[in-house]
Amino acid sequence: MEQSDPIGHEEHCHTGGAERKSHHSDKAKSNLTSRLNRIEGQIRGLKGMIERDTYCDDVLNQIAAVQSALNSVGKLLLEHHLNSCVIERIQEGDHDVVKELMSTMNKLIK
Amino acid sequence: MEQSDPIGHEEHCHTGGAERKSHHSDKAKSNLTSRLNRIEGQIRGLKGMIERDTYCDDVLNQIAAVQSALNSVGKLLLEHHLNSCVIERIQEGDHDVVKELMSTMNKLIK
Amino acid sequence: MEQSDPIGHEEHCHTGGAERKSHHSDKAKSNLTSRLNRIEGQIRGLKGMIERDTYCDDVLNQIAAVQSALNSVGKLLLEHHLNSCVIERIQEGDHDVVKELMSTMNKLIK
Amino acid sequence: MEQSDPIGHEEHCHTGGAERKSHHSDKAKSNLTSRLNRIEGQIRGLKGMIERDTYCDDVLNQIAAVQSALNSVGKLLLEHHLNSCVIERIQEGDHDVVKELMSTMNKLIK
Repeated sequence: MEQSDPIGHEEHCHTGGAERKSHHSDKAKSNLTSRLNRIEGQIRGLKGMIERDTYCDDVLNQIAAVQSALNSVGKLLLEHHLNSCVIERIQEGDHDVVKELMSTMNKLIK
Repeated sequence: MEQSDPIGHEEHCHTGGAERKSHHSDKAKSNLTSRLNRIEGQIRGLKGMIERDTYCDDVLNQIAAVQSALNSVGKLLLEHHLNSCVIERIQEGDHDVVKELMSTMNKLIK
Repeated sequence: MEQSDPIGHEEHCHTGGAERKSHHSDKAKSNLTSRLNRIEGQIRGLKGMIERDTYCDDVLNQIAAVQSALNSVGKLLLEHHLNSCVIERIQEGDHDVVKELMSTMNKLIK
Repeated sequence: MEQSDPIGHEEHCHTGGAERKSHHSDKAKSNLTSRLNRIEGQIRGLKGMIERDTYCDDVLNQIAAVQSALNSVGKLLLEHHLNSCVIERIQEGDHDVVKELMSTMNKLIK
């Protein structure tokens, strides 16, 4: 799905410097940002529904839709994380990345 | 927790007219709206995190926090729905409310 | 899906006597029991997989399958509960059923 | 928590031979097996509850407990998988393990 990027904005994990960073390609960034923009619009839509006394069942269905959109963002980020930081740090012999990942997974798997 | 409202803005279910409505008390509305405002801010925060290449693990933790905040809104709405529309419509002998509720629950219980 | 039962084993809620009961029709009972038998078999299958050192990914996929089968049982029970006890008790003016239901929902919606 | 094993039953990933295997230490195996035994007992308990017309709310609470116990087993297995197969295969340059892991995560994160 994601084609190789000729300009070289590869996705990778910055570990040098003061803090750890996750670099996304421009394409990945714009995909994530447009998904989050849509979710932000859905949240504003939810506020309008509450304001206009929309029937609860319809509001609950909209909440389920936002949850699902947010899950998709989470899965994209997890996939990126596994393919960049997790692979890189394990290859560098830094196994703490697995501990951190597991603590994140414990929050996502409910 | 929720005190009785002397002005009479009781929560109830409007079934007359063109479409079904769920009326929330002013207090309930402002509670839901301020929760959704906070969630909207969290979504904007997530966009900034992506923009600034924040480490994926931290972004994923923030996503888990939004999911949990959104779940709380869903539970408040469900509670309101059960206490207003579901009770009212069952008392009026309209059992379709249960079918609708079940179809909503099927989306929320995953 | 569920046909009306000519013998009269209707699903209902017993509230008389020492403790509250939920009566399922014979058909509903055998449906639930056969689903639980299958789940019990899947759990035994999981133990065998651990014993035989089955690759974790395959075991995790089987766990996801059991979760999903268990969710289906939960939804069937919830639907039965709404259609029997919840309707009956609300019609009798007993709104505590909604409080109990909400506390159960809080455990199921995660 | 898990002490090093002097006899050498280390947890690791077998990739040689006909099929991939996940080897658990004896201690890990007996932990997982006793958890699954308890879950099997809970499933049998659920069947008894249905048989005895136990109130649906109580059955639903028991289902939520089983879901939670099953999630714990899933998290233990995932942790083991990350610490053995995922680390080993990435170190061997085999990145397919990440694709498989992601497809499993997609089933567990709902």
